[in-house]
Amino acid sequence: MVNVKVIIEYDGSNYSGWQVQNNTDMTIQGILEESISNLNKKKVNIIGSGRTDAGVHALGQVANFYLDVDIPIEKIPDALNSLLPPDIVCKDAKIVNNKFHARYDVYGKMYRYRINNSKHKSVFSRNYVYNIYRPLDISSMERAMLYFLGKHDFSAFQASGGNIVNTIREIEDFSLTKNENEWWFEIAGTGFLYKMVRIIMGTLIEVGLGKREINSLPLLFYKKRIGRAGFTAPAKGLTLVKVYY
Amino acid sequence: MVNVKVIIEYDGSNYSGWQVQNNTDMTIQGILEESISNLNKKKVNIIGSGRTDAGVHALGQVANFYLDVDIPIEKIPDALNSLLPPDIVCKDAKIVNNKFHARYDVYGKMYRYRINNSKHKSVFSRNYVYNIYRPLDISSMERAMLYFLGKHDFSAFQASGGNIVNTIREIEDFSLTKNENEWWFEIAGTGFLYKMVRIIMGTLIEVGLGKREINSLPLLFYKKRIGRAGFTAPAKGLTLVKVYY
Repeated sequence: MVNVKVIIEYDGSNYSGWQVQNNTDMTIQGILEESISNLNKKKVNIIGSGRTDAGVHALGQVANFYLDVDIPIEKIPDALNSLLPPDIVCKDAKIVNNKFHARYDVYGKMYRYRINNSKHKSVFSRNYVYNIYRPLDISSMERAMLYFLGKHDFSAFQASGGNIVNTIREIEDFSLTKNENEWWFEIAGTGFLYKMVRIIMGTLIEVGLGKREINSLPLLFYKKRIGRAGFTAPAKGLTLVKVYY
Repeated sequence: MVNVKVIIEYDGSNYSGWQVQNNTDMTIQGILEESISNLNKKKVNIIGSGRTDAGVHALGQVANFYLDVDIPIEKIPDALNSLLPPDIVCKDAKIVNNKFHARYDVYGKMYRYRINNSKHKSVFSRNYVYNIYRPLDISSMERAMLYFLGKHDFSAFQASGGNIVNTIREIEDFSLTKNENEWWFEIAGTGFLYKMVRIIMGTLIEVGLGKREINSLPLLFYKKRIGRAGFTAPAKGLTLVKVYY
């Protein structure tokens, strides 16, 4: 039995998110477990680095599982991809230490949020980009991004329903680049609360639309006031790019 | 009544091609006519620059139609886009001379064919790129591309069923660029026979896979031998980029 670490890319558009919830919803984890169990000829449970919401995508989601059958590790991606639907791809597989745990061992994550603020929305990226038609004040958004850097109490930036006690998280990098008609916001940190990236993006977008003062941002970290942060930006704009261990 | 020229972008994955064929197939032309007729409050027939096959995409398809109602031309794209499904977008609308005809007046077209020959197929481009797993000899393909430049009898490079008498066409440009994991073949010419680009690409791919000698190419232009050219490369890799007038 070996512990296998895989890197998974997926288009989340047609799934109810990463995590298996019940027998009727289609989830990335569910589809992966089915394919891997098929390969293993026996039920396998896989451990993801964390869940992604319905409609969120991944370029580098990480998961691990214990494999019983004797398949050369370099054959695993092709073998899995022949069983997986076209919107889920295994990009890499490695044998790792038996103690490696894809969720507990996470050191950090990097997400990308794509916004198209041009008049030309692309049909080809329609499921991967949030189209905003009203003009965004990008330089204000860039200034606002600085407030998120470092260690803060992000309790105002989580969806209700979470039961996390420690809401301190550290944002290590938050950058903005232009890619043709799109703005790519890339945020890296040690961990993220439930829907935290999307609520940060919603807050930034409100700044960009002139609906929110930058001065209001420090208060969101100072006192625990859920409901004062911005709206939750649409899932489809978000991609989990990389998980660090 | 004004003659309106529109530029249309579409993801052809879910359509039976451009041209209206019967009442049950979903076509780009059919969907556009429905939306424009809705705007016009009266049935409108639209003229496309030419048909695209099922699964073929467009960044810059051109069409024209006569509009009866008095809508400011700059409002047409937004008005149309509010009626169109998310995989068809009107990028531009202009009032043109009443004699302009989107098919008869075509001066040339440019197509792009995307091939991913890396081990990393992307889920995000799965409907827009042809994935080839066996290694391609790209430099042989580049040499083979030169044979297509200029004026030739392309009768060997058309799908059977066409009843075109003059099969002489001129390829004005044929270039290859690398974009991350993809090869982009861009071909421009005065006109293309039915499935000509896809058959040219199939022929090139056979060269790249070592299944066909470059020396065999001139013969395909010399004698009219349908069936000797390569296979028809998959529709999904093909995009109509631009129509010249």
